[in-house]
Amino acid sequence: MLSPLFSLDHFRAQLAQAPGVDERAETAAAERNSQLTKPPGSLGRLEDLAIWYGSWRGTERPVIRAPQVIVFAGNHGIVQQGVSAFPSEVTAQMVANFKHGGAAINQLAKLAGARLDVHSLDLETPTKDFTKDAAMDSAELLSALQTGWKSVDPSADLLVVGEMGIGNTTPAAALACALFGGDAGDWTGRGTGVDDTGLANKTRVVAEGVALHGPAITDGVEALRRLGGREIAAMAGAMTAARMMKIPVILDGFICCAAAACLMRTHPAALDHVVAGHQSAESAHAALLTHLGKPPFLSLDLRLGEGSGAALAIQVLRAAVACHSGMATFEEAGVTGS
Amino acid sequence: MLSPLFSLDHFRAQLAQAPGVDERAETAAAERNSQLTKPPGSLGRLEDLAIWYGSWRGTERPVIRAPQVIVFAGNHGIVQQGVSAFPSEVTAQMVANFKHGGAAINQLAKLAGARLDVHSLDLETPTKDFTKDAAMDSAELLSALQTGWKSVDPSADLLVVGEMGIGNTTPAAALACALFGGDAGDWTGRGTGVDDTGLANKTRVVAEGVALHGPAITDGVEALRRLGGREIAAMAGAMTAARMMKIPVILDGFICCAAAACLMRTHPAALDHVVAGHQSAESAHAALLTHLGKPPFLSLDLRLGEGSGAALAIQVLRAAVACHSGMATFEEAGVTGS
Repeated sequence: MLSPLFSLDHFRAQLAQAPGVDERAETAAAERNSQLTKPPGSLGRLEDLAIWYGSWRGTERPVIRAPQVIVFAGNHGIVQQGVSAFPSEVTAQMVANFKHGGAAINQLAKLAGARLDVHSLDLETPTKDFTKDAAMDSAELLSALQTGWKSVDPSADLLVVGEMGIGNTTPAAALACALFGGDAGDWTGRGTGVDDTGLANKTRVVAEGVALHGPAITDGVEALRRLGGREIAAMAGAMTAARMMKIPVILDGFICCAAAACLMRTHPAALDHVVAGHQSAESAHAALLTHLGKPPFLSLDLRLGEGSGAALAIQVLRAAVACHSGMATFEEAGVTGS
Repeated sequence: MLSPLFSLDHFRAQLAQAPGVDERAETAAAERNSQLTKPPGSLGRLEDLAIWYGSWRGTERPVIRAPQVIVFAGNHGIVQQGVSAFPSEVTAQMVANFKHGGAAINQLAKLAGARLDVHSLDLETPTKDFTKDAAMDSAELLSALQTGWKSVDPSADLLVVGEMGIGNTTPAAALACALFGGDAGDWTGRGTGVDDTGLANKTRVVAEGVALHGPAITDGVEALRRLGGREIAAMAGAMTAARMMKIPVILDGFICCAAAACLMRTHPAALDHVVAGHQSAESAHAALLTHLGKPPFLSLDLRLGEGSGAALAIQVLRAAVACHSGMATFEEAGVTGS
């Protein structure tokens, strides 16, 4: 079990001290890959994924037995500015839907053989409107990070974090803009489906937030406090807890990647245990993945959140690992090499 | 059970008489999709896939219970011209590997919950070298089509056909070139990994084959006889049998798509029950998919064959169908729409 987070600086220190890969396992896994009964490189990205996974799990022949999907839900003061096509009450309604098994993530987690946990973060108390004030104070941010930090099952061997939060593409866009630069319009998209007027309004809100808070943002943690949201912070906390326990993580869409960006902008190696599951239809997701240096392995025009694309990507990673660990070598199979 | 194929013209007639989708189920599935608890369109390509699958299975709420993967193996006289990095004996060695469970497709079929069948087609009698003669006579082609035709389990609800055949990217390139035009170089790639000299030689072989047989090619079936191979014909036979039984098919890589091209060039609607699983690393696969009008849903730089990419894509289609059929509607979940 991980000890609790005592402060935001304690969280920063965790990121700075995070463990790295097992290089011996990485070398052994690469060697095994070269001996499997297939032309060299013919499993493409699956080969790299399997070696990467083994290097974090400390074994040349890994197995995925216990994936965990965690969905965090939060509400956003910024919704008062009319940034979403749906009202805030939908966040809690969807949490109920998750609990009854009726959402997309329920079907996808089940199919992936993953445990699904759902955490609501003070839905009745939205974050503050970031065009007027910081979204959270330090205690609120620490509490949200902590929710994520302690939500990861130490016996999980793969983690997906997802989110539900009406309006949360707006803080995600503001975070990306504050952390990577560019214009608000470069980072603002249609989310669940705002029209042109809605998009213009949303872009204005993002620009105002970045103008107000940008100068005071010293790292990703401070960006998260000023422009983020509780579910976004919880995702960041969970991804960091996973790192401490060497549990690989698959990123979901734009909002999950904004949480990851806060980690990378706090410590550059913070995402070494992370791969991108998919590129979503949210317009700035591709650019955000490029800034994170994470090429996606699926591109299916999803834009649902909930961890849905990453849960689907569990199957691809599972396939990579199953081939890597289950295939015969040329010698075992008596097959002539090239 | 389907009746046997009596002749090549009988096979052509099957293609011409093939059944279409259930339009009532298609409409009902689209209506159901619009009521599910997600923003409209937010499951992207998964939504289209689920509706398409339901339209072929005749139900608005389909389930995938029994996928079948069939790997066909054949040998090629053209290998004498030095077109492959591996010797022909590897075909039989890999068939043994399939039977012992050591190949990539074994791991992928198992993970997809699919039945796996392997059919060797006269491995000791390679097709003729198509730079000198037609690859097969009519009886040989009919026999290969028949092997595929009768290999499909009538109780399957999804089909993947794969192949193993040292040298078979060469006939696949020749088929694509003969059926869609362009230069031999446009369609010839490195297969399992020939070097630059090997690629130039392979391109020459493809050009010679297309020059010799092109003028006599009247449709896809005749192209298959002159430039194809037994495992390629068996894939075409199996895909057509699946169509007669309204079993949807996921295409694999370049060789599988060349088999599909022969069907499309015999009857334009022959591939309506087919989707493309992935875009492989074989250089001309993207162009071939474009000619087939089938956008792939995975792109992982695979170039293994065996049905591997399509078997992986089963999981994506399963996910699409699981979301479609398992999710709650807005009304059922008490969630406010946009």
